[in-house]
Amino acid sequence: MTTLTASKSTLQQVGFPNSNKKYFSGLIYPDIRVPFREVKLSYSGPDSRPATGLIYDTSGPYTEADFVFDSSKGLPPIRQTWIERRGDTEIYQGRITATEFVERYLNFNSESKNSSQITRKPRRALKGHNVTQMHYARKGIITPEMEYIAIRENALQEAYKSELAQKSKKEIAQLQERNARLKGNSYGAAIPDQITAEFVRQEVARGRAIIPANINHPEIEPMIIGRNFLVKINANIGNSAVSSSIDDEIAKLVWAIRWGADNVMDLSTGKDIHLTREYILRHSPVPIGTVPIYQALEKVGGVAEDLTWEIFRNTLIEQAEQGVDYFTIHAGVLLRYVPLTINRVTGIVSRGGSIMAKWCLAHHKESFLYTHFREICEIMKAYDVSFSLGDGLRPGSTADANDAAQFAELETLGELTKIAWENDVQTMIEGPGHVPMHMIQENMTKQLELCQEAPFYTLGPLTTDIAPGYDHITSAIGAAMIGWYGTAMLCYVTPKEHLGLPNRDDVKAGVIAYKIAAHAADLAKGHPAARSRDDALSKARFEFRWHDQFNLSLDPDTAKEFHDETLPAESAKDAHFCSMCGPKFCSMNITQDLRALANENIEDNDSDENAKSETEKNTKESVSV
Amino acid sequence: MTTLTASKSTLQQVGFPNSNKKYFSGLIYPDIRVPFREVKLSYSGPDSRPATGLIYDTSGPYTEADFVFDSSKGLPPIRQTWIERRGDTEIYQGRITATEFVERYLNFNSESKNSSQITRKPRRALKGHNVTQMHYARKGIITPEMEYIAIRENALQEAYKSELAQKSKKEIAQLQERNARLKGNSYGAAIPDQITAEFVRQEVARGRAIIPANINHPEIEPMIIGRNFLVKINANIGNSAVSSSIDDEIAKLVWAIRWGADNVMDLSTGKDIHLTREYILRHSPVPIGTVPIYQALEKVGGVAEDLTWEIFRNTLIEQAEQGVDYFTIHAGVLLRYVPLTINRVTGIVSRGGSIMAKWCLAHHKESFLYTHFREICEIMKAYDVSFSLGDGLRPGSTADANDAAQFAELETLGELTKIAWENDVQTMIEGPGHVPMHMIQENMTKQLELCQEAPFYTLGPLTTDIAPGYDHITSAIGAAMIGWYGTAMLCYVTPKEHLGLPNRDDVKAGVIAYKIAAHAADLAKGHPAARSRDDALSKARFEFRWHDQFNLSLDPDTAKEFHDETLPAESAKDAHFCSMCGPKFCSMNITQDLRALANENIEDNDSDENAKSETEKNTKESVSV
Repeated sequence: MTTLTASKSTLQQVGFPNSNKKYFSGLIYPDIRVPFREVKLSYSGPDSRPATGLIYDTSGPYTEADFVFDSSKGLPPIRQTWIERRGDTEIYQGRITATEFVERYLNFNSESKNSSQITRKPRRALKGHNVTQMHYARKGIITPEMEYIAIRENALQEAYKSELAQKSKKEIAQLQERNARLKGNSYGAAIPDQITAEFVRQEVARGRAIIPANINHPEIEPMIIGRNFLVKINANIGNSAVSSSIDDEIAKLVWAIRWGADNVMDLSTGKDIHLTREYILRHSPVPIGTVPIYQALEKVGGVAEDLTWEIFRNTLIEQAEQGVDYFTIHAGVLLRYVPLTINRVTGIVSRGGSIMAKWCLAHHKESFLYTHFREICEIMKAYDVSFSLGDGLRPGSTADANDAAQFAELETLGELTKIAWENDVQTMIEGPGHVPMHMIQENMTKQLELCQEAPFYTLGPLTTDIAPGYDHITSAIGAAMIGWYGTAMLCYVTPKEHLGLPNRDDVKAGVIAYKIAAHAADLAKGHPAARSRDDALSKARFEFRWHDQFNLSLDPDTAKEFHDETLPAESAKDAHFCSMCGPKFCSMNITQDLRALANENIEDNDSDENAKSETEKNTKESVSV
Repeated sequence: MTTLTASKSTLQQVGFPNSNKKYFSGLIYPDIRVPFREVKLSYSGPDSRPATGLIYDTSGPYTEADFVFDSSKGLPPIRQTWIERRGDTEIYQGRITATEFVERYLNFNSESKNSSQITRKPRRALKGHNVTQMHYARKGIITPEMEYIAIRENALQEAYKSELAQKSKKEIAQLQERNARLKGNSYGAAIPDQITAEFVRQEVARGRAIIPANINHPEIEPMIIGRNFLVKINANIGNSAVSSSIDDEIAKLVWAIRWGADNVMDLSTGKDIHLTREYILRHSPVPIGTVPIYQALEKVGGVAEDLTWEIFRNTLIEQAEQGVDYFTIHAGVLLRYVPLTINRVTGIVSRGGSIMAKWCLAHHKESFLYTHFREICEIMKAYDVSFSLGDGLRPGSTADANDAAQFAELETLGELTKIAWENDVQTMIEGPGHVPMHMIQENMTKQLELCQEAPFYTLGPLTTDIAPGYDHITSAIGAAMIGWYGTAMLCYVTPKEHLGLPNRDDVKAGVIAYKIAAHAADLAKGHPAARSRDDALSKARFEFRWHDQFNLSLDPDTAKEFHDETLPAESAKDAHFCSMCGPKFCSMNITQDLRALANENIEDNDSDENAKSETEKNTKESVSV
């Protein structure tokens, strides 16, 4: 039997070293508070001032210094007033009544039995209304969610600009040369120099980005998924019939967002599916996705053939009422595609895909997901649940990559995207899977074409099959590449993939590997806010500011721990070497001597340059005054 | 004080599970014995017979069941008779006499004091002779090393062919369709369908591949580095002034090759440099590379300016006599390139590069590595030491990638390659470093052009700077990509990069990450022997042959351990699920049901096909008899 409340020690996260939360407010909506992590750096001089110490922060209120989690209320519902202000929704009696819920699920402990988070009633669109962000966007409305996102995607760049204002002409010329050299290649994306709220609106309106934000999940800090924004990552959690408790799953959620998960999917297939999800949603500041067919299958005792549209429809509404932000729906698995998988090395490897394929074959007809797709849209728009159109026929081995089954389904997903868009329902498309490097780009090109640039959301892809136990790495390679080519969100793979349910350590390993992939992709595609963190860390490295180097890194704990393994003394944190090369062989140390030497030479030989730089010093002073 | 002999428990490796060594002999040279690891698979039926269980094996004799290491002799000198048979070398009194060596270094223990490995005399080319593999290749000679390599690169494919002979026409047609779909993109490389000894000779003759094989390192199992062969990986080991003992380093060597290192570089900069290297060489079945300037610098007390050509030359010969197979020489760091690094974010990050830059600047002249390059060639060809022309000006941050300094040096390395080739000296070129994904390909393109396809040997590259503690991953992404584009050998990066000296665990993590990168590259560029292991493992996965899946993987121990964390019972090794999804939600399980169902449908509807497949069954029987 599970306990209901995750222990406080699990939820309350220690903040990051030498960092604090910093909130920015909006211009259109002054009441929004967009969080960042600000790293306090130890400067060593004006020339080496790091560009920024501001970091995009997904960790939610858990890392606030004074945060106290009230398990009877859940996280603060920051979007509630925004939603209420729109005046197009109503509170109503949900699928599962509060009493029913308490009776069915709450035989656990008294503390939570009457908690408001459990007994709150759901919200839905007023009759005839559509409450999706896409609908507002198409009507020309910039929502608070959109401005929030613009600030979130953009603030690093603002810091960079204020930094730039303090530079001399010569320095700016050097930077321009550098920026031209480092210019990203976005493969035809339309990444602007600055992300404005209006740009966010435009992208959502034309379907090129989505803001997963169910009106019943007011706790989220809004984020965006689209090829013209920062590449996002998703972490999967959820129990299975043989492993894990609700407590474990909540702990994984909070842990995953600490390390940078932008989205989390609850893939529970074990016991207490509804309750697990309720707790995950009320604890989550990031959008939550699910695969509703899993719960529907539980309802028919695991017999795929017994699934019906009515059972599925009820499950969709039940989950929409709870606040799930996007649904994976495998509506592209058509009857005629199933035989295309027969000669594959690994058949069908999507759980949802295999369930639907079995249903189609057993009944000899198209699946209810496909035939009732327009009715599903009606549900989605009443709650603003986004589609994540599932790739039920994705390859499960590199041998099956890019085959007829996979691309046939993708074509159908493109058709369904059009229908979703006719209903102003936000839509992204799921992608593979296992794909060798040279076949990755074809996936992206076809998806952009067939799905009219609807955001692509891929699982890896894994670039080889031979490394179970290390598939966070085999797949980070593919993820980085496909992110560069234009994929908007990367679904993580943990070291336990193919072997078992990930634990806390696996979740962290998966998230970090995918932050690396996403960030490498942002650098390559040329997102304007991507480079500053690399530069700040590289400068800290070159100047032997060890603490700054650790604190700016994706995982300060591990960086420091690794350094301290051989040089634990605090004095070594200022030392101009590490144990890798020792003091005499440190190239960075030698280079600093070299620079001094070279500068002497330059001064000797180049009095013209001196004159120029004197002028520039003056210019610089006048700018910075 | 270090002890001389690594403990037996460190050296004697347990063999891999359910595997044994299998040796193949040559057709030209029947006495060569090329090792493979053969994994015994548990077949589940004729149709699911895995293509092969043969794996390229770098682990040396240490994983032989009956191997006993005799520390007084070192590893068996398998190449000694090959070298002697050529009749172009002589034994002579080396730089450091045996007595001197014993006096200078052996105050440790009595057991090893008179060991033959320590007291053996070096070998060199007879006056007027050139003993490089390139020289033989250009004279049209196929050496035993070349045939050894052909078998090593090719045997997997032979197994595949014998497998193919047993397939029906229909199966072969399916395979052809599949192979067309999966066909690699080699970016203009010339990978043949079959690697012959003559092909090896041709590639070495034209400089497109090298066989690092010093005549004083007869213990090596020959291997090749070139873009038309399997991508290789190098592991760096070696102590620094603040960390590690000889024992530790030997343990790292044996550990690195167990997990797949094709080459090892000894980058020691601490105490006992000569002795550490001696022990590494006598223990190593893989080629060993060094950076001789490190030892030269030790000889002048760490003062770069005090380095001279004479000291360097003596060091080169000392190391060539010991048997080092390739030297990293930073001969491309020219005086005029040094100022190009001044405005970089991280200056010069190559140890050797920064030492030589300092020397050039202090003396205001070109380095002795550049001015004495032809004399260095004379030494190289007397021992068959290969050049690894160092990239002293490689970028140390993504911000410095592909800049003027880096590419200026590359141009000079291209010129030096021509001089080396005039002397029939084998040459590869070192490459970066830190490079964002979109700038990687330019490195490869320029290198191929400027260095006339001499093998490229890159460090990573790291695709972002923000993840110290995880740079095996940031760099595996870049390594996989550049390997695909044509890089012949990938120098590993461990999780400790930038933070400290790697330990045993780090070495393994680095090697595995790079085996993944190299293998992903082989799949993408279309090496004919690459795919069979992925397919065998994928089939084992689909058929729930858990032990086969573990044993075919890069790291059977970890795969099994991860699986057993949640399902430890031996019965779970046949179970048709794992803890990730549990029994009801296992897509592979459902797909197997589905196939049965689909096959019934196909049989009902398609009697024509039945007739055909009957014919094929007959054909198949006649082939397999």
